[in-house]
Formats: sequence, structure tokens, C-alpha cells
Amino acid sequence: MRFEELTLEGRNAVLEAFRSGKTIDRLLVQEGCTDGPVRTILREAAKHDTIVQYIKKERLDQMSQTHNHQGVIAYAAAYAYAEVEDILKAAAEREEDPFIFILDGIEDPHNLGAIIRTANLAGAHGVIIPKRRAAGLTSTVAKASAGAINYTPVAKVTNLSATMEELKSRGLWFVCADMDGSVMYDLNLTGPLGLVIGNEGEGVSRLVREHCDMTAAIPMKGNIDSLNASVAAGVLAYEVIRQRLTQHP
Amino acid sequence: MRFEELTLEGRNAVLEAFRSGKTIDRLLVQEGCTDGPVRTILREAAKHDTIVQYIKKERLDQMSQTHNHQGVIAYAAAYAYAEVEDILKAAAEREEDPFIFILDGIEDPHNLGAIIRTANLAGAHGVIIPKRRAAGLTSTVAKASAGAINYTPVAKVTNLSATMEELKSRGLWFVCADMDGSVMYDLNLTGPLGLVIGNEGEGVSRLVREHCDMTAAIPMKGNIDSLNASVAAGVLAYEVIRQRLTQHP
Repeated sequence: MRFEELTLEGRNAVLEAFRSGKTIDRLLVQEGCTDGPVRTILREAAKHDTIVQYIKKERLDQMSQTHNHQGVIAYAAAYAYAEVEDILKAAAEREEDPFIFILDGIEDPHNLGAIIRTANLAGAHGVIIPKRRAAGLTSTVAKASAGAINYTPVAKVTNLSATMEELKSRGLWFVCADMDGSVMYDLNLTGPLGLVIGNEGEGVSRLVREHCDMTAAIPMKGNIDSLNASVAAGVLAYEVIRQRLTQHP
Repeated sequence: MRFEELTLEGRNAVLEAFRSGKTIDRLLVQEGCTDGPVRTILREAAKHDTIVQYIKKERLDQMSQTHNHQGVIAYAAAYAYAEVEDILKAAAEREEDPFIFILDGIEDPHNLGAIIRTANLAGAHGVIIPKRRAAGLTSTVAKASAGAINYTPVAKVTNLSATMEELKSRGLWFVCADMDGSVMYDLNLTGPLGLVIGNEGEGVSRLVREHCDMTAAIPMKGNIDSLNASVAAGVLAYEVIRQRLTQHP
């Protein structure tokens, strides 16, 4: 019953989900719907900082599977999000320098799942994703993560740059992947580290890049532009691991 | 018109495709069809070493999009395959030690595409895949390869182990990825090399593993079993590159 698990349609179902504390990744509202119940739902969405999209009735009708959406469809996360604090706590409990993946807008759920899988096996303490323009923790992501989603905490934040600044004040350094950077073998990637992976098409956004301390280039010899985002994340993560193993064998 | 590009239905269309030299990845024949024209098609299939599957009429009817399959449906490769010899020639032309990816049954077209993309950027000279139980060069693979399929030759062979033995006689060493192996940092991965990546679920098959000279383990710290196949291929390929860059900076 994948559909019922993840999609909520109709005013009561959606309002109830918000009130029961379920994480709603995205709320679709019919354009022009401004009556009391819809306003109540919008207030709940604002309270939880949920992304709201206004959509024409015809489109909403197409997307509806119950054919009784009453102007609202909500997508709930299949898995619970963690807080950034939980990730730092996991590092402290393991008495390790924090090692966190920061995903600047990964849109493909297969990539997100594969990266969470890599983060788990690389011994990272967690993954941070932004609220906007990014895949959330859907069941496709869970499947692609091969179960890693049950072990590796994933936090969702409103503003990646602000979160990075906060983490810098806690001692983390940030490295992002970009062709223009220094070859990754020449950088020091030991110590408390945030590994920033950019969007599939656009790479790391300007604002996030400006908050990075280092830019790492993966050496490339071929004819095309860039590695798949989840492969790039894996290659960089394992350079971090190699350096850590070499430092503390 | 993706369908017309890749699927051929009906006796004339299929026979014509064989005769014009198109690579047919898979031929489906209706069970019990033994008349002259079908026997001619089967002879062509045998000549080109095409995989043939016999299928009940009901199933074939379901799969048919023209509803006029006349007992045969063929799937043509969206891209042309290379020969193993072409891959060795590419290495010789670049005056480099051959570096070849051997994929022991990658089934997911997204993984196959991502691995061809990695092979291109890692400067590998080609990719070898088996005929059976593996994704072929479909348009999904081409898309996931981000265009790398146009530059990096992909050869399809009937028997991976036999091809590996042939390549060994030409000086190649083979390393496969497996948890039971030596940590990859401790192996010598320079020189003419075939990098063997196993199937998504089962890993490297016993027979292929027996033809490998080395087994490389990617260090893993997490709770789950293994990396995504395309991520594992990327991590190993970049360890090969690191060792080569360190040896010949």
C-alpha cells in the first residue's frame, strides 16, 4: 500500500497528518482555494515550514488517486528526519571527528538513496539535505539506500549556508567537489569535515560554495563533464577515508 | 519514437534487422512456432549468437505494441557494440597500459550507464559486458552514461571467463571487488588491468572470481552490506587512478 503510506488527499487526512506530527515533505493546494479549512492547513504548513505549491484544479485532478482531494494533496516522508544535533551526537558517542555529507540539491531519489548508502558504509555520522529543490525520504530513496536509511540520520534544513556556518562554529571544515578545485589528493581531508555534493545538473550552488573552506577536484581524463553525483560522492568519501586510515592506521 | 527505435515486431522486420547487421540484444519467439520463416530467423540468431527466449503466445501478445508480432519480437541495441580488440587498440593508440572495466552481470541500466560514465572519466579504454543476464546498450543506459557511450567502447562477449583468459595472455591482470579481499590500498593496481565489478545482488560470480589475480576490498564501517555497484566501481577505479598518478605523477 505504497500510495496510502506516502500520499494524503483531502482536508481531514492532511490536517490530521500535520497535527499527528507526521513530516510533510510537500503540500499541493488548489489555486484559488481560500476557505477556512484550507487556511487552517496552510497555517499548519507554515508552522512546520513545509513547502507549499499552488496548482491548477485540472492538474490536481490528474494527480489525485482518490479523485476526492478537496483541493489539497500532501506528500509525507516515508522515513523520519533527524536533527543536525543528532548527527553531532552520533559523532560524539563514537568519539570520532564529525564526518557529514551535505547534499546541495540532489533531485534523483536513486542518487539520494545511493549516497545515504555510501555515507553509512563510509562511516559518516549523517546526511544533511535542504528543504527546497531536493528529493526527500521517499520509499524509492529507502529502497535505493539498501536499508542504510534506518541507520544513518538524515536532517532536512531550511538554509544550508546557515547550517554550515553553525557547524563551522562547532569546528567543522567544509570541502565541496568542483572541477576548478585542487586535486583531492593534495588536500587535507582529515579532522571534522562536511563533504558538500552539488546538484546533478548544476553542481554546487554559488552561495553554498562560498561557505566552503576547500574545493576538491576529482581527476578526470575523459570526454564528458562530470561523474554521476552518487559516484562523485563515493569517490570523495573514500579519499577522506584513505587519508584517515593513513593518518591513524 | 523510442519504441520503434528499439523494438522490432513481425517476421520481416526482425529478419531485415538481422540481415542489415543491426545488433539484436534479445529475440523472443512464440513457443511452438516452427514454420519456415521463424526457422530462418532462428538461423540468423544462431549466426549472430543472439540470446533467444521462447515465450507463451499470451505473454507475447501482452508485450506486443503493434499487436501484430507474428510470433517474434526482437530488441535491438540502441548503440553499437565494439569488439574487445577495439578496446586494446584504443589503449595502444594512447600508448597506455590497458585499463578495462569487466562487468559481471550489471542488470540495472542506470548502474550500467553510470559505470560507462565513470569508465570514460577514469580514462579506461573500454567496458566488457556479458551477453546473458545483463543490461545491454539501451537508450536508458545511453542517457545515464551522460554521453560517455559515444566515446567509451563497450564490447559484449559470450563468455567472460574465456575473454579474461585471452586478455591475460595479452598481459592483463584482473582484480575483482569483494569484501573478503585485501584492502585496496595494499594492492598494486598499476600496469595493464581489468577491473571486475559484480552483479548488484550477487557480487562477482564464482567462475569469474576464479579467473581474477587479486581481490580488492573497499573498507566499510557501516551497518549494511555493500555499496551500490556503480559507486563501488567508481571508488575502485579512482584507487587505480591514485596509484597511477602517484607512480607517474
